[in-house]
Amino acid sequence: MGSTTPSRRPRVVIVGGGFGGLACAKKLAGTPAEVVLVDSRDYHLFTPLLYQVATALLNPADIVYPFRSVLRRLRNVSFYQASIARVDFERRVITTGRGRELDYDYLVLATGSTSDYFGNEELRERTLAMKTLEQAQRLRNHLLACLEHAAQSDHDADRRRWLTFVIVGGGATGVEYAGAISEFRKLVVREYPELRTDLIRIVVIEGAEAVLPAFPPKLARYAQRTLERLGVEVRTGTLLVSVEPGAVRLSSGETLATETVVWSAGVRANEPAGVEDIERGRAARLEVDERLRVKGRSEVIAIGDLAAVKADAGDLPMLSAPAMQQGRYAAALILATIERKPDPPPFRYRDKGTMAVIGRNHAVASVAGVKLTGFPAWIAWLTVHLYYLVGFRNRASVFLTWGWDYLRHDHPTRMITFVDPDPVADQLAATSMLP
Amino acid sequence: MGSTTPSRRPRVVIVGGGFGGLACAKKLAGTPAEVVLVDSRDYHLFTPLLYQVATALLNPADIVYPFRSVLRRLRNVSFYQASIARVDFERRVITTGRGRELDYDYLVLATGSTSDYFGNEELRERTLAMKTLEQAQRLRNHLLACLEHAAQSDHDADRRRWLTFVIVGGGATGVEYAGAISEFRKLVVREYPELRTDLIRIVVIEGAEAVLPAFPPKLARYAQRTLERLGVEVRTGTLLVSVEPGAVRLSSGETLATETVVWSAGVRANEPAGVEDIERGRAARLEVDERLRVKGRSEVIAIGDLAAVKADAGDLPMLSAPAMQQGRYAAALILATIERKPDPPPFRYRDKGTMAVIGRNHAVASVAGVKLTGFPAWIAWLTVHLYYLVGFRNRASVFLTWGWDYLRHDHPTRMITFVDPDPVADQLAATSMLP
Repeated sequence: MGSTTPSRRPRVVIVGGGFGGLACAKKLAGTPAEVVLVDSRDYHLFTPLLYQVATALLNPADIVYPFRSVLRRLRNVSFYQASIARVDFERRVITTGRGRELDYDYLVLATGSTSDYFGNEELRERTLAMKTLEQAQRLRNHLLACLEHAAQSDHDADRRRWLTFVIVGGGATGVEYAGAISEFRKLVVREYPELRTDLIRIVVIEGAEAVLPAFPPKLARYAQRTLERLGVEVRTGTLLVSVEPGAVRLSSGETLATETVVWSAGVRANEPAGVEDIERGRAARLEVDERLRVKGRSEVIAIGDLAAVKADAGDLPMLSAPAMQQGRYAAALILATIERKPDPPPFRYRDKGTMAVIGRNHAVASVAGVKLTGFPAWIAWLTVHLYYLVGFRNRASVFLTWGWDYLRHDHPTRMITFVDPDPVADQLAATSMLP
Repeated sequence: MGSTTPSRRPRVVIVGGGFGGLACAKKLAGTPAEVVLVDSRDYHLFTPLLYQVATALLNPADIVYPFRSVLRRLRNVSFYQASIARVDFERRVITTGRGRELDYDYLVLATGSTSDYFGNEELRERTLAMKTLEQAQRLRNHLLACLEHAAQSDHDADRRRWLTFVIVGGGATGVEYAGAISEFRKLVVREYPELRTDLIRIVVIEGAEAVLPAFPPKLARYAQRTLERLGVEVRTGTLLVSVEPGAVRLSSGETLATETVVWSAGVRANEPAGVEDIERGRAARLEVDERLRVKGRSEVIAIGDLAAVKADAGDLPMLSAPAMQQGRYAAALILATIERKPDPPPFRYRDKGTMAVIGRNHAVASVAGVKLTGFPAWIAWLTVHLYYLVGFRNRASVFLTWGWDYLRHDHPTRMITFVDPDPVADQLAATSMLP
């Protein structure tokens, strides 16, 4: 594995096993390349359902698939769990968090994105995010703990503060999470005799004039109306001014007493060290050429959220579909180079549309020019997400859980968990630069 | 909730919602008592299946049931999530970890047991335990991380060290865990092409002359033979001398290079502060009278692992069955006192027998004088554990997972997880004195 090992087959190192990296690895299966997938976690994470872990609906294991299970039939693809300390383009070597070097002939950078706090440390410390499984579990623990704190409070003002949930950012994540939290009202009615549901307040803060700015206006309006029917307050054209202990200040001059601020208003590329002299696009994404190559180096490719890939209407969005298409493209490009064939034509994104769920029976979807709302969009959302979830067992488990929840309004993974830290596990991932 | 609140109905505070505490709370439902169940966690934990969480088979949520769900139909029973800082028998008050006081008319102490390291801090720091959900998850993370470390090792000696799993204590927990880890061989064959299964070594260390000392000798012999057939080395009559970084020393003079030492050789009462002047039995359990009362105080009852309850052959074992029977007895005793009826006759334990699973298709069971081994015992074990698991959903999930695992030899919750600590959740439980 060290840099001194002679490598007969050209070695492709893929850094990051999200949608893009994993698609690339699978596409390179059975080719003459020796492929190493490096990730700080030992699992592929199905991020679109993170918000359901964060509302005590799904088990973490339901939306996770071990890399080794995905790769086990792919003889030329191996897995290496490590965080990345540095990329060295000159020496064609990556250095792991524990100081091991892996050399490459081709490098696919697919390290995704992370929350962007725009340099504001206070914001980072005082808000909760939902980009990783750790964060989703923390958010679940936090929400449930807020209910217990409220139940133990002596005054309504305290109860209100514990039961006010502020979500900053009205994109798909913010909208989906707000809708999901609104289901907690039923839980409170049923199991918290100490509390009244009218004390619960869910507020979405969005700087733009409408939620879901990436969606057609008709769908965005529908989403906002639906949220409001679910009892969610939507504040568009409003910015977060500051987060203080126990309160947030808004640009409208209003102050909300709260212990819960979910940050879904900013996302940026999660680049490894060593890429400092590469040009950046919006959200610090790496500039790539029309074949997704970095700095004109034919052996380094960046894909997914990390890469600023030009399209007709600005850069491609940070979604799973562009990442997967780019992952497959990167594999084809590398294979062509290895086989000394001409490069494939420049990367072109085939837009599969976009969708977001708002709550039980309600979603919005924009697919191939067709705009769906309500129940049909909801069914479409369920179907697509089940389809893309990796593994039969996960699909079955999620399907059964959704059915159970639909009938019972249950939160089956409702528990406040802690995990004793383990130094042996920490060595693999905790010093990670990946999200 | 404070000590100044006038209480019309007699208030029963139950500290600890394990098998004993929960049985007591349920038995007091619908009585004139006002019952408060206090626990540092928000869930009842089905401890007999912890080892299956610790081997990546079951989800944590599968063996957990939220107290509020159990109690929601019991109008006179409420839940209060808090750790216990102190019990004050004179003032009849318990103080929570956050300084709140709850007064009681009757107190049921059911705080269970915790690992006993016999004052050896090194032992505590360098071994892994399996008494709590946190510990089981840590153990799962640790085992999986050992496989990854082994896969990244350059030398067989390192690989052997990472793949040697030492279990100290040949009781039911140690035997069940050793059998479950032996299943990891199949995982390694399938998904770790870097490793050979002959590098895997599982060693059970037991000080007595046989494993399962609490079982009839015939069953113990069967268990040992079965473990050995599964490739587990059983060292009876052997003591752990010391745990050093990367190795353990045994009383046989042998040193085993290992990164994993599971401690299941010592358990002691997990008593709250304030009970210092109560006499102790073996394993520091509180001495109680024949009606489970502490110090002759008619209003304080100790049950379960915490209490040294005399039986024909020494104290009752630390198992769920005595705890549940004692919980129900405590409820009856309190109710008789409230209703000014004569005390019920002294507590008597009805022995339901004992059982332990060793591996796929193999268990031992001793029930009502009948000794079962092999497949019949295994089916009995599965049935009893499914029956006692709380909640239809958990039963269904565990049943389906077992079926899946039986056919597929899968480890569906295989992932190395971390949870970002949350200060709001920590306030409720992390300062806990409960296990």
